[in-house]
Amino acid sequence: MSVTAPRGFRAAGASAGLKAGGALDVALVVNDGPDATAAGVFTTNRIKAAPVQWSSKVLRQGVVRAVVLNSGGANACTGARGLVDTRTTADHVAARLTAAGRYPLGPADVAVCSTGLIGVPLPVKPLLTGIDEAVRKLAKDGGPSAAEAIMTTDTRPKTAVVTGEGFTVGGMAKGAGMLAPGLATMLVVLTTDAVAGGTVLDAALRSACAATFDRVDSDGCMSTNDTVLLLASGASGICPDPGDLTAAVTATCADLASQLVADAEGATKEIAIEVTGAASTADAIEVARAIARSSLVKCAIFGNDPNWGRVLAAVGTTEAAFAPDAVDVTFNGVPVCVGGAIGADRSQVDLAGRNVTVAVELHAGPEQATIWTNDLSIGYVRENSEYAS
Amino acid sequence: MSVTAPRGFRAAGASAGLKAGGALDVALVVNDGPDATAAGVFTTNRIKAAPVQWSSKVLRQGVVRAVVLNSGGANACTGARGLVDTRTTADHVAARLTAAGRYPLGPADVAVCSTGLIGVPLPVKPLLTGIDEAVRKLAKDGGPSAAEAIMTTDTRPKTAVVTGEGFTVGGMAKGAGMLAPGLATMLVVLTTDAVAGGTVLDAALRSACAATFDRVDSDGCMSTNDTVLLLASGASGICPDPGDLTAAVTATCADLASQLVADAEGATKEIAIEVTGAASTADAIEVARAIARSSLVKCAIFGNDPNWGRVLAAVGTTEAAFAPDAVDVTFNGVPVCVGGAIGADRSQVDLAGRNVTVAVELHAGPEQATIWTNDLSIGYVRENSEYAS
Repeated sequence: MSVTAPRGFRAAGASAGLKAGGALDVALVVNDGPDATAAGVFTTNRIKAAPVQWSSKVLRQGVVRAVVLNSGGANACTGARGLVDTRTTADHVAARLTAAGRYPLGPADVAVCSTGLIGVPLPVKPLLTGIDEAVRKLAKDGGPSAAEAIMTTDTRPKTAVVTGEGFTVGGMAKGAGMLAPGLATMLVVLTTDAVAGGTVLDAALRSACAATFDRVDSDGCMSTNDTVLLLASGASGICPDPGDLTAAVTATCADLASQLVADAEGATKEIAIEVTGAASTADAIEVARAIARSSLVKCAIFGNDPNWGRVLAAVGTTEAAFAPDAVDVTFNGVPVCVGGAIGADRSQVDLAGRNVTVAVELHAGPEQATIWTNDLSIGYVRENSEYAS
Repeated sequence: MSVTAPRGFRAAGASAGLKAGGALDVALVVNDGPDATAAGVFTTNRIKAAPVQWSSKVLRQGVVRAVVLNSGGANACTGARGLVDTRTTADHVAARLTAAGRYPLGPADVAVCSTGLIGVPLPVKPLLTGIDEAVRKLAKDGGPSAAEAIMTTDTRPKTAVVTGEGFTVGGMAKGAGMLAPGLATMLVVLTTDAVAGGTVLDAALRSACAATFDRVDSDGCMSTNDTVLLLASGASGICPDPGDLTAAVTATCADLASQLVADAEGATKEIAIEVTGAASTADAIEVARAIARSSLVKCAIFGNDPNWGRVLAAVGTTEAAFAPDAVDVTFNGVPVCVGGAIGADRSQVDLAGRNVTVAVELHAGPEQATIWTNDLSIGYVRENSEYAS
């Protein structure tokens, strides 16, 4: 049920003709309240798409009544025109919802997300027509349709639902590449019927993102459009303990993050880089990320080669605390490198399956972190050399 | 003539059976003097192969009489045994050259370089036999044979000669992937018959590397074995101005660096990322490197797509000084992005040839830098998933 699993939300997907063949390409999520508390996390890329610039301003006041999302165009690097187009979109949604709804909305109540090609102007006219259709189709079971409408190179829609004590968290995500820290190329809308103040909601979302989306690094590339929004309707009447709310939001994000890794462009492997024995969490993340970003490591895993030498070479580029002769590397349970040198025979390692675990023990402290990534495959190159994004 | 172009040097390539099919795999370069001044630059990777650990110690005294290099095994991550094997190699070269030569040599006069698979013990016995053959074959025209013997996945030997005022600089290089800052995966031996003190020689080499090899970033991966050595025989009797020596060494390195980029594994494009208008050289390098390391940019160029949006997304991940709405991106002379937004029509860009220039103007200052890289091709993935290095 995606974003409409919690009470107080309606959603819809519509076809505006931005994508070929009449596919759904406009999604609308409306928070019917009673509350309209919201939190947002945005790309840390300094090149921010127009909708990111708009929505981060909207989120500053902590209230969002509706989110409109389009695929088929990122509205990034589109200059002053792009900002006008985003504002026009928000205006239109506010006007149509006001006409159809219970109370007046202004554009500042509407967050906007876009995804698709960078550097192409948004086809605004068809988009507005699509919004009209989405408003007409808004429904309490419209979550799956909205999730489908935000897909780009995704091969399947991504939704998640987590139930807490008397409240529910729902979510939808799109993203299939350009997945990197400080968020993947992804749009995520999370909803909950919990009662939560803006501060608690913001803290819950930031904590959840740090532990999930920020630990996904599919191809090291960071997008201009990444947005994660969390809307709270308060419709359950339950005000959960902040820890419980954070846990439920985190579980929802973790579910969606694993679906993003599983659907990464052209990937044949889902790889967990588990670094243990680090002097600090920051060290563990730095080491795991260096490995996750090594093209040579990722090509080796694509070729089912437990190439621990390339893993060590990546570890050696970091500034983390470790002694070169004290690092162990284990592929799918087989310790192929022990003490920085040759360990078990690499022929014992079975990398034929889709899931690969590369465990690195630094023997430098008690901290650990895991980064999820993918292999570097011929399919990845093919998809990203033929598809202009 | 490679390393034997300058007077005072002999070299040879021999076959030790480390590579299949009787290919040359051991190279020897001997400095017959009268001087034996030397300088070296080594990988900044903290995981250093045994020969790197050995040779960096040898270089600390600034004297090198001979360099022995083998392909067919990197002797990296081989533990205590690896260190013993490197020492044995140096001992053997010193003993054989002493037996054959004019004066007694010790192992501390011999630098050792290895390249090939990481994490595999060196086959020492055949290597020593190969050294015997190399000592017998040492010749004043042996440079090309030595250059051939250090090849791994290189498709051709790489040599260069630059003539100064009364002196000559020669060089050979191997490297065809894992090319990244703080040196590429490469072994380079440079020779000169100039008279030069250790301090001048060291400064010339560091300056040359910083402007050439350190600006090559083929796949963002940094090797455990990178070594660049410069040996001066003084046989010309000419003591050039330090600036002239540096210029000649830099020209030699630039020639070799361009050959490395041209022969990168599986690459179909040689890409110059030229960043201008930067507030500092460091900013220019950071921006150029971020672009050079974007898998999405590199895939796009492989697909002949002038995808400036991906370029901007990479620029946006840096901390360099720039305003997002003031960045221009030009592909092969066509300004496809102006002021951070849509510029000339991308259909005007012709990326069909092998050489691609991506020019980024930051409009933030007077500094500039260029990084050379390659595309991310299906051939790169194929080569690096099938070849264990």
